[in-house]
Amino acid sequence: MEAVSIGILGLGTVGGGTVTVLTRNAREIARRAGRGIEIARAAARDYRPERIEGLNQIGQIGTDLFAVVEDPSIQVIVELIGGESPAFELVMRAIETGKHVVTANKALIAKRGNEIFGAARRRGVMVGFEAAVAGGIPIIKALREGLAANHIEWIAGIINGTGNFILTQMRDHGCDFAAALADAQARGYAEVDPTLDIEGIDAAHKLTILASLAFGIPLQFEHCFTEGISRIDPEDIANAAELGYRIKHLGIARRSAGGIELRVHPTLLPERRLLANVDGVMNAILVKGDAVGPTLFYGAGAGALPTASSVVADLIDVVRALTTDPNHRVPHLAFQPDELVDIPILPMDAIQTSYYLRLTALDRLGVMGRIATILGEEGVSIEAIEQRAPAAGETHVTLVMLTHRVIEGQMNRAIARIEALDTVQGRVKRIRMESLSG
Amino acid sequence: MEAVSIGILGLGTVGGGTVTVLTRNAREIARRAGRGIEIARAAARDYRPERIEGLNQIGQIGTDLFAVVEDPSIQVIVELIGGESPAFELVMRAIETGKHVVTANKALIAKRGNEIFGAARRRGVMVGFEAAVAGGIPIIKALREGLAANHIEWIAGIINGTGNFILTQMRDHGCDFAAALADAQARGYAEVDPTLDIEGIDAAHKLTILASLAFGIPLQFEHCFTEGISRIDPEDIANAAELGYRIKHLGIARRSAGGIELRVHPTLLPERRLLANVDGVMNAILVKGDAVGPTLFYGAGAGALPTASSVVADLIDVVRALTTDPNHRVPHLAFQPDELVDIPILPMDAIQTSYYLRLTALDRLGVMGRIATILGEEGVSIEAIEQRAPAAGETHVTLVMLTHRVIEGQMNRAIARIEALDTVQGRVKRIRMESLSG
Repeated sequence: MEAVSIGILGLGTVGGGTVTVLTRNAREIARRAGRGIEIARAAARDYRPERIEGLNQIGQIGTDLFAVVEDPSIQVIVELIGGESPAFELVMRAIETGKHVVTANKALIAKRGNEIFGAARRRGVMVGFEAAVAGGIPIIKALREGLAANHIEWIAGIINGTGNFILTQMRDHGCDFAAALADAQARGYAEVDPTLDIEGIDAAHKLTILASLAFGIPLQFEHCFTEGISRIDPEDIANAAELGYRIKHLGIARRSAGGIELRVHPTLLPERRLLANVDGVMNAILVKGDAVGPTLFYGAGAGALPTASSVVADLIDVVRALTTDPNHRVPHLAFQPDELVDIPILPMDAIQTSYYLRLTALDRLGVMGRIATILGEEGVSIEAIEQRAPAAGETHVTLVMLTHRVIEGQMNRAIARIEALDTVQGRVKRIRMESLSG
Repeated sequence: MEAVSIGILGLGTVGGGTVTVLTRNAREIARRAGRGIEIARAAARDYRPERIEGLNQIGQIGTDLFAVVEDPSIQVIVELIGGESPAFELVMRAIETGKHVVTANKALIAKRGNEIFGAARRRGVMVGFEAAVAGGIPIIKALREGLAANHIEWIAGIINGTGNFILTQMRDHGCDFAAALADAQARGYAEVDPTLDIEGIDAAHKLTILASLAFGIPLQFEHCFTEGISRIDPEDIANAAELGYRIKHLGIARRSAGGIELRVHPTLLPERRLLANVDGVMNAILVKGDAVGPTLFYGAGAGALPTASSVVADLIDVVRALTTDPNHRVPHLAFQPDELVDIPILPMDAIQTSYYLRLTALDRLGVMGRIATILGEEGVSIEAIEQRAPAAGETHVTLVMLTHRVIEGQMNRAIARIEALDTVQGRVKRIRMESLSG
């Protein structure tokens, strides 16, 4: 059968990797897909030709992104420029002209996916976005097809490699956040402006997508709670380790009584959990389904070739399904579009979790009792408590507590009251904690 | 759209679980699949109705398996009776009558899959078998679609939960194989006749299937090497732990220069590997692709509901693809049927791996030197060696060695020569060892 013609937008890290995988594995890909995939055109504003293996296999390379999208000989557009604009306009125009789309753009899907999938549905074209979440791990396919028999209860994932690298370095070397970030930047794992990664925004894009696929809800990035890792101290990592926990930056999506929890934040995990042992830049997603129980998907969450692995897997899917009736393809968000249900995302003070608390208090009779009373009054029950003997001459002690599960609003009130005590110094440090067992 | 009518053969553990998942999650499944799935008929020779949630949702239950297969109102046959016969005849007849098939039968697919897929192709029907490998883990979909862009280099998996439970118990409690097996039997994890599980035959069925999907080769169960776990001693587990390793019963499939390695055997793994930390009855498969790097898929490898999760996922796939052109479906063995290549499976003495060796030798000057000389002459190079001081009054010492990678034929010759020494007592204990890093 004739090869399928594709056009690639962007020849940066992922674009270059996609060219490499398509050319290096061309024979094997055709053996699987039943026909070849030909890069008819590519456009990029700026790229380094010497870094791209297989560049000479591209029919035509230019700088005009829209010219590729308008080319009637092209059947599939691969959008790898990133960012919201002009990616959105390019993708929408590609759909309008009847082209299928494959993209690795998590911000685009998380923020504009509802519009994009609506347009694609009306036009009868496919939009693949496996590469938008967790790089090379086929987690979107797993949620959308492999676990389709399940009522998904929750998802918890390490879905930002940069953040995981920083936390791993802090634990392994006892260094502070700033030093670990500098190391990540020196190695090229973190951007010069690392905000998207370390503040959890990138993870929130991905979690938003996973939650839609898992629960059959529209994409709702604007309701995702994010807390970054920049305020994690080496002291907290050491305290957690002593208590048998590790701190990971998790994205968590969970069905609960009143709605969906959708949150990215540092989290204490029992050290024996597989997820707690996912280190460095690697990603992993733990999915709990009612039938399958807990399942974990692990792999490289970023990088040229791993991300290209997912881009090309999507291309093979599109090639295999080119001639199918659009109404019988796997729905973009796992559920049939008219079957999405707008379950509310819970405000953060309505979620329920356990907590690690660290505070500094005057080493005096009755202080501890007062704190315990406040916690009790607000419904917070303590699972473990450790008090560090004050150094000679010190008047204050450090208290570390682990709590049982409680509504975050109650914990907020308890913390506010504790911080207001004149026997307590400074702020209460609070890190959420999950057992991931139920 | 009208519901799809299915017929279930077998109402044992997996059959019962499938009925439960289909009825419990009926609404959610229809929201994903675009139409309902209706159990029009089921047949079983023997089952316990009181154990099956959802049994009253089955249109008609009988004992005649072939009557279900012949029923023209049924579109998909779900074969869950296990074993080779009459499962083979039932599946072939279902295909002949133009029905799609979903099966959890690993022995059937490993041994008769080539015939079954040939018949299905000629008749234009689908055969789903996700549940045949690793229970609820969607590993077949991952290999066939999610990682389709990759040249797969190797696969290593814990794909038998019973064996993994036994080895985990031996390590955690220091008990011997017989005691751990009895425990597994008492808990219902092991059969009264545990041969298929503990001798690696069940794992070989699954590995055979995975290797075909990964490398684009026909199913060749008869060439899979198997070695069971019944000869693993607590002493070996303790020695391995001291050296920083764990012993797991792995299925390994690897491309190497002269062909494909296809082998199931106990294996030492570095303890920091995620795969080394998969405990109890859980399964995990590590896949190394050239683009994606290492990826791991973890979950429940057996049990009613996890296996049903995969059976029903296949059903949803079939429902979604019912109206598609048969030539554009995902090929059964990942590669287009005319693109399978008959790469030879290597005989076991041609594979290459590292080894753990344990032997008992006379505690006398020159004995160690003689052993080292033999190893050197056969090309075996030693990575680490430990000698246990003999107990008071003992004339023999125990030697534990780890070797570098070497061809198994050379190792066999070295072991034969060492065992022939009159200063060496009994047999040399040999366990293969893999770093799984490259």
